[in-house]
Amino acid sequence: MTLTTQPADALAQMRETAPLVHCITNYVAMNIAANVLLAAGASPAMLHTPEESGDFAAIAGALTVNFGTLSPNWVDGMHKAIDGAQAAGKPWVFDPVAHYASPWRAGIARDLLARQPTILRANASEVLALGGGETAAKGPDAGDEVAAAEATARTLATELGAVVAVTGATDFVTDGTRAVRIDGGSPLMPLVTAMGCSLTCLVGAYAAALDDPFDATVGALALFARAGDIAAQGASGPASFQTAFIDTLHALRPDALAAVAVTDA
Amino acid sequence: MTLTTQPADALAQMRETAPLVHCITNYVAMNIAANVLLAAGASPAMLHTPEESGDFAAIAGALTVNFGTLSPNWVDGMHKAIDGAQAAGKPWVFDPVAHYASPWRAGIARDLLARQPTILRANASEVLALGGGETAAKGPDAGDEVAAAEATARTLATELGAVVAVTGATDFVTDGTRAVRIDGGSPLMPLVTAMGCSLTCLVGAYAAALDDPFDATVGALALFARAGDIAAQGASGPASFQTAFIDTLHALRPDALAAVAVTDA
Amino acid sequence: MTLTTQPADALAQMRETAPLVHCITNYVAMNIAANVLLAAGASPAMLHTPEESGDFAAIAGALTVNFGTLSPNWVDGMHKAIDGAQAAGKPWVFDPVAHYASPWRAGIARDLLARQPTILRANASEVLALGGGETAAKGPDAGDEVAAAEATARTLATELGAVVAVTGATDFVTDGTRAVRIDGGSPLMPLVTAMGCSLTCLVGAYAAALDDPFDATVGALALFARAGDIAAQGASGPASFQTAFIDTLHALRPDALAAVAVTDA
Repeated sequence: MTLTTQPADALAQMRETAPLVHCITNYVAMNIAANVLLAAGASPAMLHTPEESGDFAAIAGALTVNFGTLSPNWVDGMHKAIDGAQAAGKPWVFDPVAHYASPWRAGIARDLLARQPTILRANASEVLALGGGETAAKGPDAGDEVAAAEATARTLATELGAVVAVTGATDFVTDGTRAVRIDGGSPLMPLVTAMGCSLTCLVGAYAAALDDPFDATVGALALFARAGDIAAQGASGPASFQTAFIDTLHALRPDALAAVAVTDA
Repeated sequence: MTLTTQPADALAQMRETAPLVHCITNYVAMNIAANVLLAAGASPAMLHTPEESGDFAAIAGALTVNFGTLSPNWVDGMHKAIDGAQAAGKPWVFDPVAHYASPWRAGIARDLLARQPTILRANASEVLALGGGETAAKGPDAGDEVAAAEATARTLATELGAVVAVTGATDFVTDGTRAVRIDGGSPLMPLVTAMGCSLTCLVGAYAAALDDPFDATVGALALFARAGDIAAQGASGPASFQTAFIDTLHALRPDALAAVAVTDA
Repeated sequence: MTLTTQPADALAQMRETAPLVHCITNYVAMNIAANVLLAAGASPAMLHTPEESGDFAAIAGALTVNFGTLSPNWVDGMHKAIDGAQAAGKPWVFDPVAHYASPWRAGIARDLLARQPTILRANASEVLALGGGETAAKGPDAGDEVAAAEATARTLATELGAVVAVTGATDFVTDGTRAVRIDGGSPLMPLVTAMGCSLTCLVGAYAAALDDPFDATVGALALFARAGDIAAQGASGPASFQTAFIDTLHALRPDALAAVAVTDA
């Protein structure tokens, strides 16, 4: 089996560690991402300015970088934070939100990708475009199926020496050698803003607690998928789903993750 | 009858289009505004920096500009975005939050108003003050009744060549020639922050999907009013109301909008 | 008894005043803090830029400064706002979020503390570190018990000529002479992000409405504690707790505050 640490053990380990996660994320996502991490059992910290981002990334357990609502001074803060994380040997996770939305943003994404993220988490459209392919998307919502991006994800993972996670109805995770698909979640998830951004932060929490970034990524995605399954039962729409989802992240016991279908790909 | 496209048809058309809406809005509003658009059936994108705002506004279906938590570099981004939207022939919606709160902010509002918004959405205090009148408000909460701002709204609409929407317990919409009032909603709505800001973004979604900005504005306001009516039933306070409101935006079928009272004014 | 105005009367007085509160707070907190103030009966305004922050602080009833997601241009805006508030004789409240997180942030905290806040609200780790002591915390989550910070809080209150509130499972409030402990709330509260930041804004609302900043602080903390007690009944996790908490802030009648244990310390 591809995984050394199963999702149930990964969750227990993450909660035991209660990692401090340095999240540089966008304005839309900050509140929900912090709540997702607190509910799941991690300790989020949102700060971004170059005057302190490098110092803080060095003491946190992991760094996550999401550039949704980007501006030039935040880019400096991201690079300084990556400097700090890498000097301290801490993993960092990159989430290139809608990097194809403008030529300027695409250039920033290339620069950040060149900084060798430990893990790349993106939707299918973002992965396809990073690989030089065509995408149907223009904004942050995906316009392509995960399956269409699997080959590109494998190539990217090998080229970058990173774990690449493509998330959607069925997630795909690969490090170029190993690869799995994860089923679960709910069609309500893309109707709640910043769920993907929050997942990126959660991947950071797992990466801080587990040695293997592949197992860490699969663990975080499995938790999201299972919590999505459970929260969708009885939800009346996207907002009551969001409430139930965060409550579930807190209440869910590791053994409930045995129900998640993680299959070799 | 004043409307060519009734609210029920306007909602169906907006959902059919699923427009990409470029929202430049304040930090308080970003999350709820994105969730309102996703629940209603549109695709929001929040980005603001001058390096990309013009490029993106040109490819989105509409642009909305709200300057709640303003700073100088955001003003540049707003102007670049307006440049992009106008060059591409896309509508833009202006929401001059508490423009009377400081002399500096008032000047920015005048500059943005001079850029000929397609639609202006504001509360009664903001409209009165734009027209040079007195207002009881100092911050973002309205201190005046919509009825007191109707005459000013008509004058502004004619002067600006824009649709002007004054929202409150009874909304008023005019393009200088046509005018309607829309009843509905709940007294809980002003107790949820950024509902007006979210409505501005939703007006953008309708303006992207419908040719007539007057019908688009009335359609968005009618959806808000009806969803507010429904969500208030059984809400225990402002937060459970917000959850029910977003769930309702998603669940509401177009024919439920026949119940909204839109009357000529 | 230490209090001149009991929490029940303080709430009635705050709602009667419906104060306009100028909140400079972090990106994570802005939405929930605004909703907390609206639900409780105050009128929040979020704006920060130096071009207008001084003008606005002078017309608001109180100013609150929280530097969670700090950057240099926000620091300028904070100082200008303090200038405006002090020139107009308005109280201001300081919340030094994780000031020990970086040397740069610690320096900003010292500069702001030297501006003589009317009230300092912080968690135990932040208070201990302000007093020069050791703390177990690295990020925004407290790593120490309130009891361990009481002596430091008394010293700080005397040195600063300020009310110091240390919040946690049992809160401690002192002005150097008077001191009380407040029991209540729920273990779910630290699992909801920005609850402390929101409380800081609420303390500002009370400080705008009451003459005595000690009574104002105790009143705000008593409301939070009691609303937390009530909201925890029936909550399924952190997110449903947050919803119930904001609903409760709106529904709670002053006489329900008689149940809060405020004891001399």
